[in-house]
Amino acid sequence: MDKKIKINTPKGFWVAGVHCGLKADQEKDLALIVSDTPCQVMGAFTTNKVKAAPVLYDQAILNSGKSVRAIIVNAGNANACTGDQGIVHTKEMARQTASIFGGLADDVLVLSTGVIGVQLPMKKIISGIGAAGNLLIPDGWEDAAQAIMTTDTQPKVYSIRSAEGYTITGIAKGSGMIAPNMATMLAVIATDVILSPEMKEKAAQIWEQSFNRIVVDGDMSTNDTVLLIANGAAGITPTENFEKDLLQVCSTLAKAVVQDGEGATKLVKVIIRGAAKQADAKKIARAIATSSLCKTAFYGADPNWGRFICAAGYAGVDIEVDKLILWIKDKNEKIKLFENAQAANYDEAAGISLMNENEWAIELDLCAGSENYWLWTCDLSHEYITINGHYRT
Amino acid sequence: MDKKIKINTPKGFWVAGVHCGLKADQEKDLALIVSDTPCQVMGAFTTNKVKAAPVLYDQAILNSGKSVRAIIVNAGNANACTGDQGIVHTKEMARQTASIFGGLADDVLVLSTGVIGVQLPMKKIISGIGAAGNLLIPDGWEDAAQAIMTTDTQPKVYSIRSAEGYTITGIAKGSGMIAPNMATMLAVIATDVILSPEMKEKAAQIWEQSFNRIVVDGDMSTNDTVLLIANGAAGITPTENFEKDLLQVCSTLAKAVVQDGEGATKLVKVIIRGAAKQADAKKIARAIATSSLCKTAFYGADPNWGRFICAAGYAGVDIEVDKLILWIKDKNEKIKLFENAQAANYDEAAGISLMNENEWAIELDLCAGSENYWLWTCDLSHEYITINGHYRT
Repeated sequence: MDKKIKINTPKGFWVAGVHCGLKADQEKDLALIVSDTPCQVMGAFTTNKVKAAPVLYDQAILNSGKSVRAIIVNAGNANACTGDQGIVHTKEMARQTASIFGGLADDVLVLSTGVIGVQLPMKKIISGIGAAGNLLIPDGWEDAAQAIMTTDTQPKVYSIRSAEGYTITGIAKGSGMIAPNMATMLAVIATDVILSPEMKEKAAQIWEQSFNRIVVDGDMSTNDTVLLIANGAAGITPTENFEKDLLQVCSTLAKAVVQDGEGATKLVKVIIRGAAKQADAKKIARAIATSSLCKTAFYGADPNWGRFICAAGYAGVDIEVDKLILWIKDKNEKIKLFENAQAANYDEAAGISLMNENEWAIELDLCAGSENYWLWTCDLSHEYITINGHYRT
Repeated sequence: MDKKIKINTPKGFWVAGVHCGLKADQEKDLALIVSDTPCQVMGAFTTNKVKAAPVLYDQAILNSGKSVRAIIVNAGNANACTGDQGIVHTKEMARQTASIFGGLADDVLVLSTGVIGVQLPMKKIISGIGAAGNLLIPDGWEDAAQAIMTTDTQPKVYSIRSAEGYTITGIAKGSGMIAPNMATMLAVIATDVILSPEMKEKAAQIWEQSFNRIVVDGDMSTNDTVLLIANGAAGITPTENFEKDLLQVCSTLAKAVVQDGEGATKLVKVIIRGAAKQADAKKIARAIATSSLCKTAFYGADPNWGRFICAAGYAGVDIEVDKLILWIKDKNEKIKLFENAQAANYDEAAGISLMNENEWAIELDLCAGSENYWLWTCDLSHEYITINGHYRT
């Protein structure tokens, strides 16, 4: 993600990121987004059976179909596995936030991320909400993106201002516990358009093509949430370009999550084509993207294609080994590693050199049909172990 | 595995382990087991769709129901993804081995393990087979166990001599690419009993309780094979004790594989009980045992139970979070970490201390029925990344 990119501000949104005491060293840990007017909202949530309190709370609001005015997000504590008290705390966060603009608790959506199983320190949170309310500015997106980080090393924020006159601005966090099973992190995308009713289905498709296509470690979190809020302040019901722009915002943020994956040194696109069914291609892409052996080979820049073929073999798909063709590739070059059930004739040094790049792809043709699937993933490094061996301490 | 244990030798077997040049530094890399008389044989193989040439070859012999006289095993090269040439090489290994005792190729089973996708250096292999044939001794089991190692740090050999007069001796190798999907490594168990026909089903049950209950990294290899050979030299059709003894040999070897898992510092038993169906318990046990976040928490001795509950939540089982009870335990102590959808009242220091032990267990009660399942797994450490980032170089 290009850090020098200009962050455009959608009309009618006020944003802040503050430190309230959940993270150490005065780091921002509470983000607040408030709209001047009620927002249409669409969302996607983790499919984990163990859902954090704010996920359950937000789902109920989205299911009711009502509009919202604000989103409050804390990092450093997931408010997951916190029992009835966790639900009480979520509602209290919403109520306190609503008091800023004289609304009710259900005008506010709540997102939390961080350690599981610890009750929220509500005194700090409430005081932080008050502080954030006093610091709201239209340009606060970068502060908000910083405030929602956990093990992320970079804030993730991206925006598009269209010639039609609307703006889409998104923030996201995510680094570990990333798996592609319906919304894989926290992301909030705000826009000033008026959403058409069809956007609900289209947004789901866009998330399927972006946030659901990323793997860091294959662990699906208890808190994953993507929210799209639209306040209509630009007065525009946009053309089809809006979908394209929304996809670009979501893809850019999703890709940034993988690039900033815990300990990640490389972004690898896994492309499976020639499948009889898309579901087959998906299973194989996920097997390769989550295999520790494949991911350590990415890390070591080792064109040990046997591991990729091996992972394809145990993905639960009825593949024909004789038909498989495997390449690694970047923008300039495509190196065939495997064909006719054995190694292709390739230059090992060229393979190592390509895999040492920051961004490249694996492409596997099953030669069994015309369906395709792809995923972004990263490598598995020493640093991942360092981060996760002692995450809480 | 207690290294001082006496290795008993089953009657009528001759064993050797030699260096033929597949590994560096004069390390043994070729193991040969020959029986004086034809052996009954039972086996289990990887369910990976990509099967190594020797797996396909052995499966055909086992399916034919014929007896065998010998097993030849090489380490350092998996002979997987090697096309038609790989099959030719496997048959040639069998033919050369059979010439030692004047038999035919299909009197010999072949096992290979090591890097995928490289043709076997047959000159070295053939010369090694000849050398091994000249070094056969009844006491060669430890040499053979050494010869089949790849990234293993310890040879794995275990035997039982029964009061009834029979002996069971097993060797195994395995350290990475270990997943519990039907035979997860190479293992050869030799015995001098006469196997009853019912043992085929019972052997499958025993493997299900031992070799199929271990996870290192969740990658299923192309070469996994377990073979049980029985030459009847003790002249005994054993009592039911034999099953118990066979389970002990298989369990000891399987456990040794996890203990010697690549980079592993801890053996963790994952016990799921109170499930409505065993399949549910199995899914949750595997989710926890393969989760990078759980495994790094094991490594860091961090009682971050949120990760264990989280993994249970995404295992694809309809669990009720309110009912779950989670403990960690060792021989002396059982610490409750989670109950009533939130943290139990436990002493963090005691949890850390328990998790710093070499061997302990996670126990999760779903409180939804009476079915159980368990697995052995290990932690995920820096050393795993070091080993697999540059396995081939």
